[in-house]
Amino acid sequence: MQVVSELTDTSRLCLHTITTKPWPLEIAVEKYAAAGVHGITVWRQWLEGKSLEKSRRLISDAGLQVVSLCRGGFFPSANAGKRQEAIAENLRALDEAAAIGAPWVVLVCGADPSQSLIDSRQQIFDGISACLEQAQKLGVKLAIEPLHPMYAGDRSAINTMKQANDLCELIDHPFLGVAVDVYHVWWDPDLQKEIERCGRAGRLLAFHICDWHLPVEDLLNDRGLMGEGCINIREIRGWVEQTGFTGFNEVEIFSNRWWKTDMDDFLAAILAAYRRHS
Amino acid sequence: MQVVSELTDTSRLCLHTITTKPWPLEIAVEKYAAAGVHGITVWRQWLEGKSLEKSRRLISDAGLQVVSLCRGGFFPSANAGKRQEAIAENLRALDEAAAIGAPWVVLVCGADPSQSLIDSRQQIFDGISACLEQAQKLGVKLAIEPLHPMYAGDRSAINTMKQANDLCELIDHPFLGVAVDVYHVWWDPDLQKEIERCGRAGRLLAFHICDWHLPVEDLLNDRGLMGEGCINIREIRGWVEQTGFTGFNEVEIFSNRWWKTDMDDFLAAILAAYRRHS
Repeated sequence: MQVVSELTDTSRLCLHTITTKPWPLEIAVEKYAAAGVHGITVWRQWLEGKSLEKSRRLISDAGLQVVSLCRGGFFPSANAGKRQEAIAENLRALDEAAAIGAPWVVLVCGADPSQSLIDSRQQIFDGISACLEQAQKLGVKLAIEPLHPMYAGDRSAINTMKQANDLCELIDHPFLGVAVDVYHVWWDPDLQKEIERCGRAGRLLAFHICDWHLPVEDLLNDRGLMGEGCINIREIRGWVEQTGFTGFNEVEIFSNRWWKTDMDDFLAAILAAYRRHS
Repeated sequence: MQVVSELTDTSRLCLHTITTKPWPLEIAVEKYAAAGVHGITVWRQWLEGKSLEKSRRLISDAGLQVVSLCRGGFFPSANAGKRQEAIAENLRALDEAAAIGAPWVVLVCGADPSQSLIDSRQQIFDGISACLEQAQKLGVKLAIEPLHPMYAGDRSAINTMKQANDLCELIDHPFLGVAVDVYHVWWDPDLQKEIERCGRAGRLLAFHICDWHLPVEDLLNDRGLMGEGCINIREIRGWVEQTGFTGFNEVEIFSNRWWKTDMDDFLAAILAAYRRHS
């Protein structure tokens, strides 16, 4: 295993607003900034009913950098009308990203269990392709996030780094890249190779961290804090950084368990775990 | 999609005893035979405290064929003593398989979350290698069952058909093969290719069916009956049969939902679903 340096400061620490789900945007921004967090990935629900310009200013006035907007995608459907709606929704997400200064929109690509994975994958190709002209015009990229194979039924038909890389090569557009989330890809024996391939192609946009906590009691909302599980987070970060990646380490934790606790305590735990286990 | 013939009879239908969990071996054998099921895969718990010879005769007198013994494996551990115990346990499983006339033992290879996947995979290689001489002596094969990546933390570090095929090639022993379970591998974009590769090498021993039922409420015990989910079971069966496979279609369903129902009704539902959706 290569030597990977410890994270001794928080200059590259980013939090997803969903991680501290009980906090609305104003509180999250204030708390993150006070804790020395430097980046924020904004989930679209946190912008609902707000002025995008005010949200942008709120974040930048606090000294935080918008790392990305979560999330677009959900392209596949056996229903053609719904596929058109999904594309329209992704174009709106691109507008929002541009308005708050997010350099890319993270894509949870989607899946429709009423049709084959082959069909869903084709529709993902079509959906992404339909959004890239607008993405380039706005200067906002699209980041394919391969999701764990346990979501192939209903959330994403793109389930490995290899698939994400293949899809990027096939579409071959400068505004398309990949978001690597350790939770989804840690198990993959080809992970190091595909991270290298992604970086070589200049497509590795984002790096998300959390942990695989056992037993998994809920498919969606039982992620662990770094150090609570069995993912080789630091080693994977090393592979990512060897490609030249100097972006943020984004903490994205969905956890019914943690969401029930006091968010100030959780934020403190994240900061400690970030240094110790990331 | 290639045309795959419907299953019009039950001559190749096998049930795993765990599928009808509430039934002890005697009842399962009686019920399966009465329903026209031709094969049985016996889980080791169903043999506990019984004479192996009597169990063998019970099954064969009912006209059922023993398709396999479930299960061996669980090789990895950070503790060397436990690894030795696991090998001893697998040798006992081989003895049991020979005693009841099972042609192979299915391996859930195991994983230890306290160490890396690389270490676990090495220990699986070592564990299997340590059992093959005895396997050959007894005339009982070992069948690696790649498990879904959602089990990489605690149940199996072998998570794709490619890994299972690679491991078989590396060990290269005539008494080592692969069990394909649609639940674990359906999502894999390389599935057809790796099934073909497995068949070409003469290593495709077993084919297990069930369905991916949504939402998955329990990682282990929420499998669907064929037709309840989104797996392209018939298409995958076609890929398996194109390799020359003429073995049993083994129904292996862990389901808290179904186990709560009347087992006679469940057996009837399995028979109907087998014809309609497999």
